[in-house]
Amino acid sequence: METRKALGELLAHQKRIDRLAAAGGILFWDEQVNLPPGSAEFRAEQNAHFSELLHRESTLPEVGRWLDALEAGQDALSEDECVIVKDARREYDREVKLPGEFVARRSKARSESFHAWVEARRNNDFASFAPHLQKALDFARQEAEYQGAEDPYDFFVDVYDPGMSTAVIDPLFAELREGLKPILETILAAEDTIPPDLFRGFPVDGQEAFLREVVTAFGFDFNVGRLDRAVHPFCGGHPLDTRMTTRYDPDNPLDSLSSAMHETGHALYEQGLPAEHPGTALSRAAGMAAHESQSRIWENQVGRGRPFWKHWEPRYRAFFKEQLAGVDSDQLYRAVNRVAITPIRVDADEVTYNLHIILRYGLERDLFAARVAIADLPEAWNERSRDLLGYTPESDAEGCLQDVHWCEGMFGYFPSYTLGNLLGAQFWYAAKDALPDLEADFGRGDYKRLLGWLRENVHSAARRYDANGLARRVTGNQLGTEALLRYLRERYLPLYSA
Amino acid sequence: METRKALGELLAHQKRIDRLAAAGGILFWDEQVNLPPGSAEFRAEQNAHFSELLHRESTLPEVGRWLDALEAGQDALSEDECVIVKDARREYDREVKLPGEFVARRSKARSESFHAWVEARRNNDFASFAPHLQKALDFARQEAEYQGAEDPYDFFVDVYDPGMSTAVIDPLFAELREGLKPILETILAAEDTIPPDLFRGFPVDGQEAFLREVVTAFGFDFNVGRLDRAVHPFCGGHPLDTRMTTRYDPDNPLDSLSSAMHETGHALYEQGLPAEHPGTALSRAAGMAAHESQSRIWENQVGRGRPFWKHWEPRYRAFFKEQLAGVDSDQLYRAVNRVAITPIRVDADEVTYNLHIILRYGLERDLFAARVAIADLPEAWNERSRDLLGYTPESDAEGCLQDVHWCEGMFGYFPSYTLGNLLGAQFWYAAKDALPDLEADFGRGDYKRLLGWLRENVHSAARRYDANGLARRVTGNQLGTEALLRYLRERYLPLYSA
Repeated sequence: METRKALGELLAHQKRIDRLAAAGGILFWDEQVNLPPGSAEFRAEQNAHFSELLHRESTLPEVGRWLDALEAGQDALSEDECVIVKDARREYDREVKLPGEFVARRSKARSESFHAWVEARRNNDFASFAPHLQKALDFARQEAEYQGAEDPYDFFVDVYDPGMSTAVIDPLFAELREGLKPILETILAAEDTIPPDLFRGFPVDGQEAFLREVVTAFGFDFNVGRLDRAVHPFCGGHPLDTRMTTRYDPDNPLDSLSSAMHETGHALYEQGLPAEHPGTALSRAAGMAAHESQSRIWENQVGRGRPFWKHWEPRYRAFFKEQLAGVDSDQLYRAVNRVAITPIRVDADEVTYNLHIILRYGLERDLFAARVAIADLPEAWNERSRDLLGYTPESDAEGCLQDVHWCEGMFGYFPSYTLGNLLGAQFWYAAKDALPDLEADFGRGDYKRLLGWLRENVHSAARRYDANGLARRVTGNQLGTEALLRYLRERYLPLYSA
Repeated sequence: METRKALGELLAHQKRIDRLAAAGGILFWDEQVNLPPGSAEFRAEQNAHFSELLHRESTLPEVGRWLDALEAGQDALSEDECVIVKDARREYDREVKLPGEFVARRSKARSESFHAWVEARRNNDFASFAPHLQKALDFARQEAEYQGAEDPYDFFVDVYDPGMSTAVIDPLFAELREGLKPILETILAAEDTIPPDLFRGFPVDGQEAFLREVVTAFGFDFNVGRLDRAVHPFCGGHPLDTRMTTRYDPDNPLDSLSSAMHETGHALYEQGLPAEHPGTALSRAAGMAAHESQSRIWENQVGRGRPFWKHWEPRYRAFFKEQLAGVDSDQLYRAVNRVAITPIRVDADEVTYNLHIILRYGLERDLFAARVAIADLPEAWNERSRDLLGYTPESDAEGCLQDVHWCEGMFGYFPSYTLGNLLGAQFWYAAKDALPDLEADFGRGDYKRLLGWLRENVHSAARRYDANGLARRVTGNQLGTEALLRYLRERYLPLYSA
């Protein structure tokens, strides 16, 4: 087959798959945001059939033939076209090894497992969830076997972050843990001056109105996106129809705000990806570490900084005059940056957050290696929590039942969060170096230079580079712990020193 | 192939198609309720690919083989199983005649046409919409040609109502028009005692809370359904995940209420269909006339009756004490049942509504027969409006641009509304005959007996009978005009007699 013709066919196919996958994204969003309580099983069936259909479309035999032709005619392809072909080959080869009925069964099991997990967490009942978790692990092992993966866990790490592996992560996480120790010790030795019930009774409508102003200022495009309420904040949909969610608690307004800024970081990345060749490596995110780097920069480096609050504090006070009457500016800033041991990862501050990830990373590996059995997970979790955080969960609901990931078969995803923190801090210093007096912009509520820099350096690169490649290209350095540790020291030690 | 095996395969296939079609239903609902303004074109592409995929699944060659085997082994099938096979054959033969690319192109054109129509109506600009309407008509003609239909318009009438045709409709509509004349003359000769601005400033949240109580009392199951806001009220989704919408106007609260009751009628039918064999004739609605009969019974026969208001008026006043302070019970009831010439079909009362349908029915036939050209549609519309309603639309927005149907290629649907009104009135009297003192129930806010009767007599029959068959079976009579005319006389003449 003629190379240009094969490329044309492949591009049309990738675009089609992109559109269909986006339809699946709307179904997922709808399930999280709108699904009537009694419709869960029905939706699980829909998801299963839809997954199977999408799988069949992705693995049509002609796709393999186009890829063969393109690989044979590689000399006639541009560098970017080779990137497209290489990534399409990777995805096709993985999909084609999975039987359609396996994909359908797995999809159904995931939906069931999700709803079982919601129940189990609500009732603090690990035993009822254990069979579902076992099934999720079995599905993952079976998938790795279909793939002929040498190391099943490494296979999944690579799914979320192409090129990443435990061999890269292990030393990074070990170094990070060591580096965090003295920072955390200093912080915990200092007196926590923030009263625990500082924020009470923030009307949800006001919270939403305020954070819509913030995410609009960051650059989220509401013309092709939405922000809704869901139990679990996430950013889904597609660059051309982006669906963010957050949740609101009248007594914990900073949580909604930082969740929304976090999801906006994801959304800005998606909305900043080049749209020219949808579904190909030229319009897909580099990987989940890169994705999390974007969410973290907006949530943390921007959203927890003094310049951000310099601009937004008056507006926040305008929305919540009464509620903030007894809170001075310094207290507000300290509350935003409060560090404390907490059992729940999603509530964790920037410093302890990575310890939560290291805990899960170790456990995932042990589950895959059968060093920890499902039945022993609660105890193994609690033991690691003592070791890493010095805290024993009071229940499985605040222990091994707290996260949604495993119930949906997302093993190997957790490391991306910390890799994203590393990468985000590296990007942050690179941006500050490149953009003189960057944070002064934030003091005026202006994020255009930062967003422009991220678009130019990170978003527009799409999937051309892996996490490490992106780090080298944008910052001149490998992925490492230095930038994050520097950032944490600069941000937190002044707040917690005597 | 063995008959039982073929039946098993067919049933599994129909269930799968049912689940996939339901996913498409969620996408449609999402497009109407949630779609960001800039995402319309993107969604059109998704819809096109999804339609094509669903079409391909529906027309897999093995389905034809199962149907052949089942028809050959028909003697071994039960009566119900024969119903399933006959309906599946009808649908399969129609789908299989359409090329997949035609289905995809038509889907995309429909989405584009819908958005063009929204714009054109807003700007009262028929010229900008005319090419889209021409395209929709061309697609319909092309489809009828693929089908080898003798009469293209009759083909589409039969799509929405199996067995129905212009030969049946013509005399019914002629009779109805004659029968309506004296009723309408009496009404228009009487003085209209209802001030036009009787209802003002009804807060939308209160309207929604009130009508949620009403639709819950009717029997809508919120455990597997939702009620949301959309520009165009509709009932979509699936019996296991029903999505109703309505719209709210602070100065027109009766419109939201009757829309919601109307959509609840559709929803109760869907939720009352037997779930045992999804996607087959045993769990599908009989047709759109039957569907509209259900929506009309709840909206009109129930929701405009004195017994309904006897129960709900105090509650309505509790929600809108101030707004209703100057409205007495008689005025409220007269406002609910106000008859007047109005240019907009969806705002029309029960008496004039059918004239709006007769207008459209005639025009559709003329468009198909090329007796009216698209360019001449506005004038043809206005002329018929003068003839039927004695009213000349002041603009195309309140004339031929007012309805959504044609832009989405739904030709042949309009007659179902009036056929539904006929059928609904027939069912109504049959229910009153079968259930002594039925309306006394409504005075207590109790709709169980009526719903039970509809479930037993109409919903549970699914698609076993066509509209005429259902009329005969449930009421002992053919589909006719007598019951509707009787009902309209009983309801309206007392209100408008001197």
